Amino acid sequence: MSISKNQLKVITSLSQKKYRQKHQLFVAEGVKVVAELINSPFKVDTLFALDNFETTISKEKIVRISEKELQKISNLKSPNKVLALFKIPEEKPLQNTGLIIVLDAINDPGNLGTIIRLCDWFGVTELICSKDTVDCYNPKVVQASMGSLTRIPVKYLDLEVYLKSTKITTFIADMDGQNVYQSDLTKEAILIMGNEANGVSEEIKSLVTHKLSIPRFGEIQKTESLNVATATAILLSEFKRSF
Amino acid sequence: MSISKNQLKVITSLSQKKYRQKHQLFVAEGVKVVAELINSPFKVDTLFALDNFETTISKEKIVRISEKELQKISNLKSPNKVLALFKIPEEKPLQNTGLIIVLDAINDPGNLGTIIRLCDWFGVTELICSKDTVDCYNPKVVQASMGSLTRIPVKYLDLEVYLKSTKITTFIADMDGQNVYQSDLTKEAILIMGNEANGVSEEIKSLVTHKLSIPRFGEIQKTESLNVATATAILLSEFKRSF
Repeated sequence: MSISKNQLKVITSLSQKKYRQKHQLFVAEGVKVVAELINSPFKVDTLFALDNFETTISKEKIVRISEKELQKISNLKSPNKVLALFKIPEEKPLQNTGLIIVLDAINDPGNLGTIIRLCDWFGVTELICSKDTVDCYNPKVVQASMGSLTRIPVKYLDLEVYLKSTKITTFIADMDGQNVYQSDLTKEAILIMGNEANGVSEEIKSLVTHKLSIPRFGEIQKTESLNVATATAILLSEFKRSF
Repeated sequence: MSISKNQLKVITSLSQKKYRQKHQLFVAEGVKVVAELINSPFKVDTLFALDNFETTISKEKIVRISEKELQKISNLKSPNKVLALFKIPEEKPLQNTGLIIVLDAINDPGNLGTIIRLCDWFGVTELICSKDTVDCYNPKVVQASMGSLTRIPVKYLDLEVYLKSTKITTFIADMDGQNVYQSDLTKEAILIMGNEANGVSEEIKSLVTHKLSIPRFGEIQKTESLNVATATAILLSEFKRSF
């Protein structure tokens, strides 16, 4: 058995969000990431795997393929034994508790993947994204999140509506905010991180009173800003180490 | 005037370290990064620029090229007006003071670029790399460091020799280390970060007594490790906020 023309068409289409939504499927690749997704509540649709990929998944869900076929369907430079289609899980209800990260228009898939991994490490309750943030089932996000996607609920919401409806203390990462090392942080909190180039939008800023900055220590004050993923790492560390 | 065959050959060769060392040149691209490098002590060799790229660099160092030519020589998906060759600067003497980051076998150019940017933000005195760490003049490192490369001295040394010769208190980032939030950090310090997959090598570990870890807060203890750049961000934040 090998890949059918129709399967090939579906796999290729899943690099686009509209087709992921139509088919309710997304792509994950490589032994490690696929194994993590298999061992999670996520449900496998189909595995396209080399003969030497071992798994306990029932045989009717596995299509054995050649290295050449894998190379054809893979998004990776060095494909690693398996490409799998998983079902996009149903969104869970909002939790409104604990530490919540909100992302306003994050564009880069690598940044979103890294932030999902950070949320997992730091025990973030959920990750809320603006509707124009990159899709968490984008193949590059799936690879960069390295399985953390299965543990962190990600939701795409209208941020203005969401923020107006919550009573949790809300903070914004902002270059002009208060020094985070001298700020009173709360255990329950929403932390908003903004777009790579423009930060948090003015509409969202106007809804929030607490603004946090990470001070520069470099003598020459030229570094424009920290990358949003590294800034998220530092702020999450500050929130978590205090409690 | 347009690109000569010989120039084309040199530019292409500079994606490899041995040719960067032979020619003592490296490539930087895009209006922003090139402008930062021009406004630094780094010396321009040649600018290959579209007609609409404005600069005060003397004309004999500029080769005006077409968009098609730029696309041919560029390493970027969306080339931005200019590709420049800069001279690799001479290494400065070791400073042996302040906060120093040591990298043991970092492979990923994006990680090194991000760490150089972090060193700049947090006022790190210098960055010491093992000889098998990715070259800081690799085009991807140059782009990811976004000009911070001009402010952070990067040196490639035999780490064992270096660490045996220094008296500065040395810390290793290590999964089995002491909780960084409960550790006594020092203002003058060397912090060693290890390879993406394997961490710090056993030879180096045996030379160092202080080991620091960033505790996991996630309930499900599956996240394998933090990315080395995000871990560096968190540890630098801890070192700097204390003093």
